[in-house]
Amino acid sequence: MKKVEPNVCTPLVGETVEEIINEVRMIVPQEPDIIEWRADYFKEIQNIGQVETVLEKTADLLADIPLLFTIRSEKEGGQPLSLREDEKIEILKEVSRTPFVEFIDYEVANSEQYIQQLRSATQQNGTKLILSYHNFNHTPEDSVLLKALHQAEFYKADYAKLAVMPQSNSDVLQLLMVTEKARSSMGTPLITISMGGLGIITRMFGWVFGSSITFAVGEKSSAPGQIPLKELKDVIELTKKYKGAP
Amino acid sequence: MKKVEPNVCTPLVGETVEEIINEVRMIVPQEPDIIEWRADYFKEIQNIGQVETVLEKTADLLADIPLLFTIRSEKEGGQPLSLREDEKIEILKEVSRTPFVEFIDYEVANSEQYIQQLRSATQQNGTKLILSYHNFNHTPEDSVLLKALHQAEFYKADYAKLAVMPQSNSDVLQLLMVTEKARSSMGTPLITISMGGLGIITRMFGWVFGSSITFAVGEKSSAPGQIPLKELKDVIELTKKYKGAP
Repeated sequence: MKKVEPNVCTPLVGETVEEIINEVRMIVPQEPDIIEWRADYFKEIQNIGQVETVLEKTADLLADIPLLFTIRSEKEGGQPLSLREDEKIEILKEVSRTPFVEFIDYEVANSEQYIQQLRSATQQNGTKLILSYHNFNHTPEDSVLLKALHQAEFYKADYAKLAVMPQSNSDVLQLLMVTEKARSSMGTPLITISMGGLGIITRMFGWVFGSSITFAVGEKSSAPGQIPLKELKDVIELTKKYKGAP
Repeated sequence: MKKVEPNVCTPLVGETVEEIINEVRMIVPQEPDIIEWRADYFKEIQNIGQVETVLEKTADLLADIPLLFTIRSEKEGGQPLSLREDEKIEILKEVSRTPFVEFIDYEVANSEQYIQQLRSATQQNGTKLILSYHNFNHTPEDSVLLKALHQAEFYKADYAKLAVMPQSNSDVLQLLMVTEKARSSMGTPLITISMGGLGIITRMFGWVFGSSITFAVGEKSSAPGQIPLKELKDVIELTKKYKGAP
Protein backbone atom coordinates (compact mmCIF):
# COMPACT_ATOMS: atom_id res chain seq x y z
CA MET A 1 0.00 0.00 0.00
CA LYS A 2 1.28 3.45 -0.86
CA LYS A 3 1.89 6.09 1.76
CA VAL A 4 1.11 8.70 -0.82
CA GLU A 5 -2.62 9.06 -1.35
CA PRO A 6 -4.88 8.11 -2.89
CA ASN A 7 -4.68 4.36 -2.68
CA VAL A 8 -6.51 2.65 -5.49
CA CYS A 9 -8.56 -0.37 -4.43
CA THR A 10 -9.92 -3.05 -6.75
CA PRO A 11 -12.76 -5.42 -5.84
CA LEU A 12 -12.99 -9.20 -6.14
CA VAL A 13 -16.53 -10.29 -6.89
CA GLY A 14 -16.06 -13.98 -7.74
CA GLU A 15 -18.66 -16.47 -6.50
CA THR A 16 -16.45 -19.55 -6.12
CA VAL A 17 -12.95 -20.26 -4.82
CA GLU A 18 -11.79 -20.78 -8.39
CA GLU A 19 -13.35 -17.58 -9.71
CA ILE A 20 -11.82 -15.55 -6.91
CA ILE A 21 -8.36 -17.01 -7.46
CA ASN A 22 -8.64 -16.28 -11.19
CA GLU A 23 -9.67 -12.71 -10.46
CA VAL A 24 -6.68 -12.25 -8.16
CA ARG A 25 -4.37 -13.58 -10.88
CA MET A 26 -5.80 -11.06 -13.35
CA ILE A 27 -5.76 -8.12 -10.97
CA VAL A 28 -2.41 -8.40 -9.18
CA PRO A 29 -0.33 -7.60 -12.30
CA GLN A 30 -2.32 -4.33 -12.61
CA GLU A 31 -0.79 -3.31 -9.26
CA PRO A 32 -3.69 -1.96 -7.25
CA ASP A 33 -2.70 -0.55 -3.85
CA ILE A 34 -5.41 -2.55 -2.06
CA ILE A 35 -7.66 -5.45 -3.09
CA GLU A 36 -11.14 -5.71 -1.60
CA TRP A 37 -12.71 -9.09 -1.34
CA ARG A 38 -16.45 -8.48 -1.55
CA ALA A 39 -17.17 -11.71 0.27
CA ASP A 40 -20.92 -11.19 0.02
CA TYR A 41 -20.55 -12.44 -3.59
CA PHE A 42 -18.94 -15.68 -2.36
CA LYS A 43 -21.43 -18.56 -2.47
CA GLU A 44 -19.82 -20.28 0.52
CA ILE A 45 -19.60 -17.24 2.77
CA GLN A 46 -21.42 -19.14 5.52
CA ASN A 47 -18.64 -21.72 5.68
CA ILE A 48 -15.78 -20.13 7.61
CA GLY A 49 -13.47 -23.00 6.60
CA GLN A 50 -14.01 -22.15 2.92
CA VAL A 51 -13.54 -18.44 3.61
CA GLU A 52 -10.18 -19.23 5.23
CA THR A 53 -9.27 -21.47 2.29
CA VAL A 54 -9.76 -18.51 -0.05
CA LEU A 55 -7.67 -16.29 2.21
CA GLU A 56 -4.84 -18.83 2.36
CA LYS A 57 -4.90 -19.62 -1.36
CA THR A 58 -4.89 -15.97 -2.40
CA ALA A 59 -2.28 -14.85 0.15
CA ASP A 60 0.75 -15.85 -1.94
CA LEU A 61 -0.71 -14.38 -5.11
CA LEU A 62 -1.43 -11.08 -3.36
CA ALA A 63 2.19 -10.83 -2.19
CA ASP A 64 2.25 -7.54 -0.32
CA ILE A 65 -1.00 -6.06 -1.63
CA PRO A 66 -3.17 -5.61 1.47
CA LEU A 67 -6.61 -7.20 1.54
CA LEU A 68 -9.81 -5.45 2.56
CA PHE A 69 -12.52 -7.90 3.64
CA THR A 70 -16.13 -6.84 3.19
CA ILE A 71 -19.46 -8.57 3.55
CA ARG A 72 -21.58 -5.74 2.20
CA SER A 73 -25.12 -5.81 3.58
CA GLU A 74 -27.94 -6.08 1.08
CA LYS A 75 -29.49 -2.87 2.42
CA GLU A 76 -26.34 -0.98 1.43
CA GLY A 77 -25.75 -2.46 -1.99
CA GLY A 78 -24.48 -5.97 -1.21
CA GLN A 79 -25.66 -9.38 -2.38
CA PRO A 80 -28.67 -11.02 -0.70
CA LEU A 81 -27.43 -13.35 2.07
CA SER A 82 -29.17 -15.44 4.68
CA LEU A 83 -26.52 -14.65 7.32
CA ARG A 84 -27.79 -13.20 10.55
CA GLU A 85 -25.90 -10.14 11.82
CA ASP A 86 -24.35 -12.10 14.72
CA GLU A 87 -23.11 -14.75 12.27
CA LYS A 88 -21.62 -12.04 10.08
CA ILE A 89 -19.83 -10.54 13.06
CA GLU A 90 -18.39 -13.94 13.94
CA ILE A 91 -16.97 -14.30 10.42
CA LEU A 92 -15.53 -10.78 10.51
CA LYS A 93 -13.92 -11.36 13.91
CA GLU A 94 -12.55 -14.69 12.68
CA VAL A 95 -10.97 -13.30 9.50
CA SER A 96 -9.55 -10.36 11.42
CA ARG A 97 -7.57 -12.93 13.44
CA THR A 98 -5.90 -14.34 10.33
CA PRO A 99 -2.71 -12.75 9.06
CA PHE A 100 -4.30 -12.25 5.64
CA VAL A 101 -6.72 -9.40 6.24
CA GLU A 102 -5.50 -5.85 6.74
CA PHE A 103 -8.84 -3.99 6.59
CA ILE A 104 -12.42 -4.85 7.42
CA ASP A 105 -15.40 -2.81 6.24
CA TYR A 106 -18.61 -2.73 8.23
CA GLU A 107 -21.67 -0.47 7.98
CA VAL A 108 -21.82 2.29 10.58
CA ALA A 109 -25.64 1.96 10.63
CA ASN A 110 -25.36 -1.43 12.33
CA SER A 111 -26.17 -1.74 15.99
CA GLU A 112 -23.68 -0.36 18.48
CA GLN A 113 -23.01 -3.71 20.17
CA TYR A 114 -21.81 -5.31 16.92
CA ILE A 115 -19.68 -2.36 15.97
CA GLN A 116 -18.07 -2.28 19.43
CA GLN A 117 -17.40 -6.02 19.33
CA LEU A 118 -15.81 -5.72 15.92
CA ARG A 119 -13.83 -2.63 16.87
CA SER A 120 -12.40 -4.40 19.87
CA ALA A 121 -11.56 -7.62 17.93
CA THR A 122 -9.93 -5.73 15.06
CA GLN A 123 -7.97 -3.57 17.48
CA GLN A 124 -6.61 -6.66 19.24
CA ASN A 125 -5.54 -8.15 15.92
CA GLY A 126 -4.13 -4.99 14.41
CA THR A 127 -6.74 -5.01 11.65
CA LYS A 128 -7.96 -1.63 10.41
CA LEU A 129 -11.67 -0.93 10.56
CA ILE A 130 -13.56 1.03 7.89
CA LEU A 131 -17.01 2.11 9.03
CA SER A 132 -19.15 2.92 6.03
CA TYR A 133 -22.39 4.52 4.92
CA HIS A 134 -23.95 3.79 1.50
CA ASN A 135 -26.94 5.21 -0.25
CA PHE A 136 -27.57 3.80 -3.74
CA ASN A 137 -30.61 5.97 -4.24
CA HIS A 138 -29.67 9.59 -3.63
CA THR A 139 -27.33 12.00 -1.86
CA PRO A 140 -28.75 12.93 1.55
CA GLU A 141 -28.23 16.41 2.93
CA ASP A 142 -24.94 17.49 4.50
CA SER A 143 -26.06 16.84 8.07
CA VAL A 144 -26.83 13.18 7.31
CA LEU A 145 -23.49 12.65 5.58
CA LEU A 146 -21.51 14.40 8.32
CA LYS A 147 -23.40 12.48 10.99
CA ALA A 148 -22.36 9.16 9.41
CA LEU A 149 -18.72 10.28 9.32
CA HIS A 150 -18.81 11.58 12.90
CA GLN A 151 -20.38 8.35 14.06
CA ALA A 152 -17.55 6.37 12.46
CA GLU A 153 -15.10 8.64 14.26
CA PHE A 154 -17.00 8.16 17.53
CA TYR A 155 -16.50 4.38 17.16
CA LYS A 156 -12.78 4.99 16.54
CA ALA A 157 -12.86 3.72 12.96
CA ASP A 158 -9.55 3.83 11.10
CA TYR A 159 -11.46 5.14 8.08
CA ALA A 160 -14.90 6.72 7.72
CA LYS A 161 -16.50 5.93 4.36
CA LEU A 162 -19.38 7.47 2.39
CA ALA A 163 -20.67 6.18 -0.95
CA VAL A 164 -23.78 7.93 -2.19
CA MET A 165 -25.69 8.24 -5.45
CA PRO A 166 -25.94 11.68 -7.07
CA GLN A 167 -29.09 12.75 -8.88
CA SER A 168 -27.45 15.89 -10.26
CA ASN A 169 -24.12 17.64 -10.71
CA SER A 170 -24.85 19.63 -7.57
CA ASP A 171 -25.01 16.40 -5.57
CA VAL A 172 -21.53 15.52 -6.82
CA LEU A 173 -20.16 18.90 -5.74
CA GLN A 174 -21.98 18.55 -2.41
CA LEU A 175 -20.19 15.25 -1.72
CA LEU A 176 -16.83 16.87 -2.47
CA MET A 177 -17.67 19.88 -0.30
CA VAL A 178 -18.66 17.63 2.61
CA THR A 179 -15.40 15.74 2.19
CA GLU A 180 -13.44 18.98 2.30
CA LYS A 181 -15.35 20.11 5.41
CA ALA A 182 -14.92 16.77 7.17
CA ARG A 183 -11.21 16.68 6.42
CA SER A 184 -10.70 20.01 8.10
CA SER A 185 -12.82 19.16 11.15
CA MET A 186 -12.10 15.46 11.77
CA GLY A 187 -9.04 13.36 12.52
CA THR A 188 -10.28 10.13 10.92
CA PRO A 189 -9.12 9.45 7.37
CA LEU A 190 -11.97 9.53 4.87
CA ILE A 191 -13.13 7.53 1.87
CA THR A 192 -15.89 9.29 -0.05
CA ILE A 193 -17.53 8.51 -3.36
CA SER A 194 -20.31 9.94 -5.46
CA MET A 195 -21.34 6.88 -7.48
CA GLY A 196 -22.53 6.32 -11.05
CA GLY A 197 -21.57 8.08 -14.25
CA LEU A 198 -22.34 11.53 -12.81
CA GLY A 199 -19.96 10.93 -9.92
CA ILE A 200 -16.87 9.66 -11.69
CA ILE A 201 -14.94 12.83 -11.05
CA THR A 202 -15.05 11.94 -7.35
CA ARG A 203 -13.32 8.64 -8.17
CA MET A 204 -10.65 10.52 -10.09
CA PHE A 205 -10.30 13.60 -7.87
CA GLY A 206 -11.83 12.83 -4.49
CA TRP A 207 -8.32 12.54 -3.05
CA VAL A 208 -7.75 16.21 -3.77
CA PHE A 209 -10.56 16.97 -1.30
CA GLY A 210 -9.53 14.39 1.30
CA SER A 211 -10.64 10.92 0.19
CA SER A 212 -7.85 8.43 0.95
CA ILE A 213 -8.97 5.43 -1.10
CA THR A 214 -10.64 5.23 -4.51
CA PHE A 215 -12.19 2.14 -6.05
CA ALA A 216 -11.49 0.98 -9.60
CA VAL A 217 -12.32 -1.98 -11.78
CA GLY A 218 -9.69 -4.67 -12.16
CA GLU A 219 -11.81 -7.44 -13.62
CA LYS A 220 -15.41 -6.56 -12.79
CA SER A 221 -16.97 -3.61 -11.01
CA SER A 222 -18.61 -3.85 -7.61
CA ALA A 223 -20.46 -0.52 -7.69
CA PRO A 224 -21.80 1.88 -10.33
CA GLY A 225 -19.31 4.32 -11.84
CA GLN A 226 -16.07 2.46 -11.20
CA ILE A 227 -13.60 2.91 -14.05
CA PRO A 228 -10.65 0.68 -15.01
CA LEU A 229 -7.65 0.72 -12.69
CA LYS A 230 -5.07 1.61 -15.32
CA GLU A 231 -7.04 4.58 -16.61
CA LEU A 232 -7.82 5.83 -13.11
CA LYS A 233 -4.14 5.64 -12.15
CA ASP A 234 -3.19 7.60 -15.27
CA VAL A 235 -5.58 10.45 -14.42
CA ILE A 236 -4.30 10.58 -10.84
CA GLU A 237 -0.68 10.71 -12.03
CA LEU A 238 -1.51 13.43 -14.53
CA THR A 239 -3.28 15.50 -11.89
CA LYS A 240 -0.39 15.12 -9.45
CA LYS A 241 2.03 16.19 -12.15
CA TYR A 242 0.24 19.47 -12.81
CA LYS A 243 -1.41 20.22 -9.48
CA GLY A 244 1.79 21.58 -8.05
CA ALA A 245 1.95 24.05 -10.92
CA PRO A 246 1.53 27.74 -10.08
CA MET B 1 -14.44 23.45 -34.11
CA LYS B 2 -16.33 20.58 -32.62
CA LYS B 3 -20.05 20.70 -32.00
CA VAL B 4 -19.57 18.35 -29.09
CA GLU B 5 -18.30 20.16 -26.03
CA PRO B 6 -15.91 21.00 -24.60
CA ASN B 7 -13.79 22.68 -27.22
CA VAL B 8 -10.13 22.79 -26.30
CA CYS B 9 -8.42 26.10 -27.01
CA THR B 10 -4.68 26.65 -27.15
CA PRO B 11 -3.01 30.07 -26.84
CA LEU B 12 -0.38 31.71 -29.02
CA VAL B 13 1.91 33.93 -26.97
CA GLY B 14 4.68 34.75 -29.45
CA GLU B 15 6.10 38.27 -29.49
CA THR B 16 7.09 38.53 -33.16
CA VAL B 17 5.56 37.50 -36.48
CA GLU B 18 8.11 34.71 -36.75
CA GLU B 19 7.53 33.40 -33.22
CA ILE B 20 3.79 33.35 -33.74
CA ILE B 21 4.07 31.50 -37.03
CA ASN B 22 6.39 28.95 -35.43
CA GLU B 23 3.95 28.45 -32.59
CA VAL B 24 1.11 27.87 -35.04
CA ARG B 25 3.21 25.29 -36.88
CA MET B 26 3.87 23.44 -33.61
CA ILE B 27 0.31 23.64 -32.35
CA VAL B 28 -1.82 22.84 -35.41
CA PRO B 29 -0.70 19.17 -35.60
CA GLN B 30 -1.91 18.74 -32.01
CA GLU B 31 -5.43 19.50 -33.30
CA PRO B 32 -6.85 21.99 -30.83
CA ASP B 33 -10.48 22.92 -31.51
CA ILE B 34 -9.72 26.65 -31.28
CA ILE B 35 -6.52 28.70 -31.26
CA GLU B 36 -6.39 31.92 -29.26
CA TRP B 37 -3.98 34.60 -30.37
CA ARG B 38 -3.11 36.48 -27.21
CA ALA B 39 -2.19 39.55 -29.22
CA ASP B 40 -1.21 41.51 -26.09
CA TYR B 41 2.06 39.52 -26.27
CA PHE B 42 2.71 40.76 -29.83
CA LYS B 43 5.32 43.52 -29.86
CA GLU B 44 3.74 45.21 -32.89
CA ILE B 45 0.16 45.16 -31.65
CA GLN B 46 -0.08 48.91 -32.24
CA ASN B 47 0.56 48.42 -35.93
CA ILE B 48 -2.69 47.19 -37.48
CA GLY B 49 -0.85 46.40 -40.72
CA GLN B 50 1.44 44.00 -38.88
CA VAL B 51 -1.51 42.49 -37.02
CA GLU B 52 -3.19 41.78 -40.35
CA THR B 53 0.04 40.33 -41.71
CA VAL B 54 0.06 37.82 -38.87
CA LEU B 55 -3.59 36.96 -39.53
CA GLU B 56 -2.97 36.44 -43.23
CA LYS B 57 0.23 34.44 -42.77
CA THR B 58 -1.30 32.14 -40.18
CA ALA B 59 -4.60 31.64 -42.01
CA ASP B 60 -3.38 28.86 -44.30
CA LEU B 61 -1.56 27.10 -41.50
CA LEU B 62 -4.66 27.19 -39.31
CA ALA B 63 -6.72 25.57 -42.07
CA ASP B 64 -10.16 25.25 -40.47
CA ILE B 65 -9.17 25.78 -36.84
CA PRO B 66 -11.04 28.91 -35.76
CA LEU B 67 -9.08 31.81 -34.30
CA LEU B 68 -9.95 33.66 -31.12
CA PHE B 69 -8.39 37.12 -30.99
CA THR B 70 -7.66 38.61 -27.58
CA ILE B 71 -5.85 41.70 -26.36
CA ARG B 72 -6.00 40.86 -22.68
CA SER B 73 -5.88 43.99 -20.51
CA GLU B 74 -3.05 44.26 -18.02
CA LYS B 75 -5.58 44.64 -15.17
CA GLU B 76 -6.97 41.20 -15.99
CA GLY B 77 -3.74 39.31 -16.49
CA GLY B 78 -2.51 40.59 -19.86
CA GLN B 79 0.81 42.10 -20.91
CA PRO B 80 1.51 45.79 -20.23
CA LEU B 81 0.58 47.83 -23.30
CA SER B 82 0.52 51.52 -24.05
CA LEU B 83 -2.67 51.21 -26.13
CA ARG B 84 -5.55 53.47 -25.11
CA GLU B 85 -8.92 51.71 -24.83
CA ASP B 86 -10.26 53.47 -27.94
CA GLU B 87 -7.22 52.30 -29.92
CA LYS B 88 -7.74 48.77 -28.70
CA ILE B 89 -11.39 48.91 -29.78
CA GLU B 90 -10.33 50.10 -33.25
CA ILE B 91 -7.98 47.11 -33.61
CA LEU B 92 -10.67 44.70 -32.41
CA LYS B 93 -13.25 46.15 -34.81
CA GLU B 94 -10.71 46.01 -37.62
CA VAL B 95 -9.75 42.36 -37.07
CA SER B 96 -13.39 41.38 -36.71
CA ARG B 97 -13.85 42.61 -40.29
CA THR B 98 -11.21 40.20 -41.63
CA PRO B 99 -12.25 36.67 -42.59
CA PHE B 100 -9.59 35.26 -40.25
CA VAL B 101 -11.06 35.87 -36.82
CA GLU B 102 -14.01 33.84 -35.56
CA PHE B 103 -14.07 34.98 -31.91
CA ILE B 104 -13.06 38.12 -30.06
CA ASP B 105 -12.57 38.29 -26.29
CA TYR B 106 -13.12 41.54 -24.42
CA GLU B 107 -13.43 42.26 -20.70
CA VAL B 108 -16.97 42.81 -19.47
CA ALA B 109 -15.66 45.35 -16.92
CA ASN B 110 -14.87 47.78 -19.75
CA SER B 111 -17.09 50.78 -20.29
CA GLU B 112 -20.47 50.21 -21.84
CA GLN B 113 -19.82 52.38 -24.89
CA TYR B 114 -16.84 50.26 -25.97
CA ILE B 115 -18.62 46.99 -25.36
CA GLN B 116 -21.65 48.20 -27.35
CA GLN B 117 -19.45 49.39 -30.23
CA LEU B 118 -17.66 46.07 -30.31
CA ARG B 119 -20.87 44.07 -30.00
CA SER B 120 -22.35 45.90 -32.94
CA ALA B 121 -19.21 45.59 -35.11
CA THR B 122 -18.78 41.87 -34.36
CA GLN B 123 -22.46 41.24 -35.01
CA GLN B 124 -22.22 42.90 -38.43
CA ASN B 125 -19.21 40.78 -39.30
CA GLY B 126 -20.50 37.50 -37.92
CA THR B 127 -17.71 37.37 -35.34
CA LYS B 128 -18.57 35.83 -31.98
CA LEU B 129 -17.99 37.91 -28.89
CA ILE B 130 -16.71 36.50 -25.60
CA LEU B 131 -17.18 38.89 -22.68
CA SER B 132 -14.88 37.93 -19.85
CA TYR B 133 -14.10 38.52 -16.19
CA HIS B 134 -10.70 37.62 -14.67
CA ASN B 135 -9.42 37.70 -11.14
CA PHE B 136 -5.84 36.50 -10.71
CA ASN B 137 -5.91 37.08 -6.99
CA HIS B 138 -8.89 35.27 -5.52
CA THR B 139 -12.36 33.87 -6.12
CA PRO B 140 -14.99 36.52 -5.35
CA GLU B 141 -18.31 35.51 -3.85
CA ASP B 142 -21.10 33.99 -5.95
CA SER B 143 -22.94 37.27 -6.45
CA VAL B 144 -19.88 38.90 -8.05
CA LEU B 145 -19.31 35.96 -10.36
CA LEU B 146 -22.95 35.71 -11.36
CA LYS B 147 -23.14 39.46 -11.90
CA ALA B 148 -20.25 39.28 -14.39
CA LEU B 149 -21.97 36.46 -16.28
CA HIS B 150 -25.32 38.23 -16.27
CA GLN B 151 -23.69 41.41 -17.50
CA ALA B 152 -22.16 39.51 -20.41
CA GLU B 153 -25.59 38.12 -21.19
CA PHE B 154 -27.10 41.62 -20.96
CA TYR B 155 -24.62 42.77 -23.65
CA LYS B 156 -25.66 39.77 -25.79
CA ALA B 157 -22.27 38.11 -25.64
CA ASP B 158 -21.98 34.81 -27.50
CA TYR B 159 -20.03 33.47 -24.52
CA ALA B 160 -19.74 34.67 -20.92
CA LYS B 161 -16.33 33.86 -19.42
CA LEU B 162 -15.00 33.70 -15.84
CA ALA B 163 -11.40 32.93 -14.91
CA VAL B 164 -10.66 33.28 -11.21
CA MET B 165 -7.92 32.23 -8.81
CA PRO B 166 -8.80 29.81 -6.02
CA GLN B 167 -7.22 30.10 -2.59
CA SER B 168 -8.67 26.79 -1.42
CA ASN B 169 -10.43 23.64 -2.60
CA SER B 170 -13.71 25.23 -1.57
CA ASP B 171 -13.10 28.05 -4.03
CA VAL B 172 -12.69 25.48 -6.80
CA LEU B 173 -15.99 23.81 -5.91
CA GLN B 174 -17.64 27.23 -5.66
CA LEU B 175 -16.63 28.04 -9.24
CA LEU B 176 -18.08 24.75 -10.45
CA MET B 177 -21.28 25.31 -8.45
CA VAL B 178 -21.69 28.82 -9.91
CA THR B 179 -21.18 27.36 -13.39
CA GLU B 180 -23.86 24.75 -12.76
CA LYS B 181 -26.24 27.42 -11.44
CA ALA B 182 -25.57 29.79 -14.33
CA ARG B 183 -26.07 27.05 -16.89
CA SER B 184 -29.52 26.31 -15.56
CA SER B 185 -30.56 29.96 -15.32
CA MET B 186 -28.91 31.59 -18.38
CA GLY B 187 -29.08 31.11 -22.11
CA THR B 188 -25.55 32.32 -22.90
CA PRO B 189 -22.89 29.62 -23.27
CA LEU B 190 -20.29 29.75 -20.52
CA ILE B 191 -16.53 29.45 -20.21
CA THR B 192 -15.41 29.12 -16.59
CA ILE B 193 -12.04 28.37 -15.07
CA SER B 194 -10.57 28.12 -11.62
CA MET B 195 -6.90 28.83 -12.32
CA GLY B 196 -3.62 27.53 -10.92
CA GLY B 197 -2.69 24.06 -9.66
CA LEU B 198 -5.65 23.94 -7.28
CA GLY B 199 -8.07 24.58 -10.10
CA ILE B 200 -6.92 22.09 -12.71
CA ILE B 201 -9.94 19.88 -12.24
CA THR B 202 -12.02 22.73 -13.67
CA ARG B 203 -9.90 22.63 -16.83
CA MET B 204 -10.47 18.88 -17.08
CA PHE B 205 -14.09 18.69 -15.90
CA GLY B 206 -15.61 22.16 -16.14
CA TRP B 207 -17.51 21.04 -19.24
CA VAL B 208 -19.46 18.57 -17.12
CA PHE B 209 -20.85 21.56 -15.21
CA GLY B 210 -21.45 23.74 -18.25
CA SER B 211 -18.16 25.28 -19.41
CA SER B 212 -17.99 25.17 -23.22
CA ILE B 213 -14.32 25.89 -23.82
CA THR B 214 -11.21 24.83 -21.88
CA PHE B 215 -7.71 26.19 -22.36
CA ALA B 216 -4.64 23.99 -22.72
CA VAL B 217 -0.97 24.45 -23.46
CA GLY B 218 0.19 23.77 -27.00
CA GLU B 219 3.60 25.39 -26.88
CA LYS B 220 3.54 27.76 -23.92
CA SER B 221 0.88 28.55 -21.32
CA SER B 222 -0.94 31.87 -21.15
CA ALA B 223 -2.41 31.47 -17.65
CA PRO B 224 -1.59 29.52 -14.48
CA GLY B 225 -2.75 25.90 -14.32
CA GLN B 226 -3.04 25.15 -18.04
CA ILE B 227 -1.99 21.58 -18.84
CA PRO B 228 -0.79 20.13 -22.15
CA LEU B 229 -3.40 19.74 -24.88
CA LYS B 230 -2.83 16.04 -25.53
CA GLU B 231 -3.15 15.09 -21.86
CA LEU B 232 -6.23 17.27 -21.39
CA LYS B 233 -7.91 15.69 -24.40
CA ASP B 234 -7.16 12.20 -23.06
CA VAL B 235 -8.82 12.96 -19.71
CA ILE B 236 -11.87 14.41 -21.47
CA GLU B 237 -12.18 11.35 -23.69
CA LEU B 238 -11.81 9.03 -20.71
CA THR B 239 -14.47 10.89 -18.77
CA LYS B 240 -16.87 10.83 -21.72
CA LYS B 241 -16.32 7.10 -22.11
CA TYR B 242 -17.33 6.33 -18.52
CA LYS B 243 -19.72 9.15 -17.68
CA GLY B 244 -22.57 7.48 -19.49
CA ALA B 245 -22.07 4.40 -17.32
CA PRO B 246 -24.83 3.55 -14.87
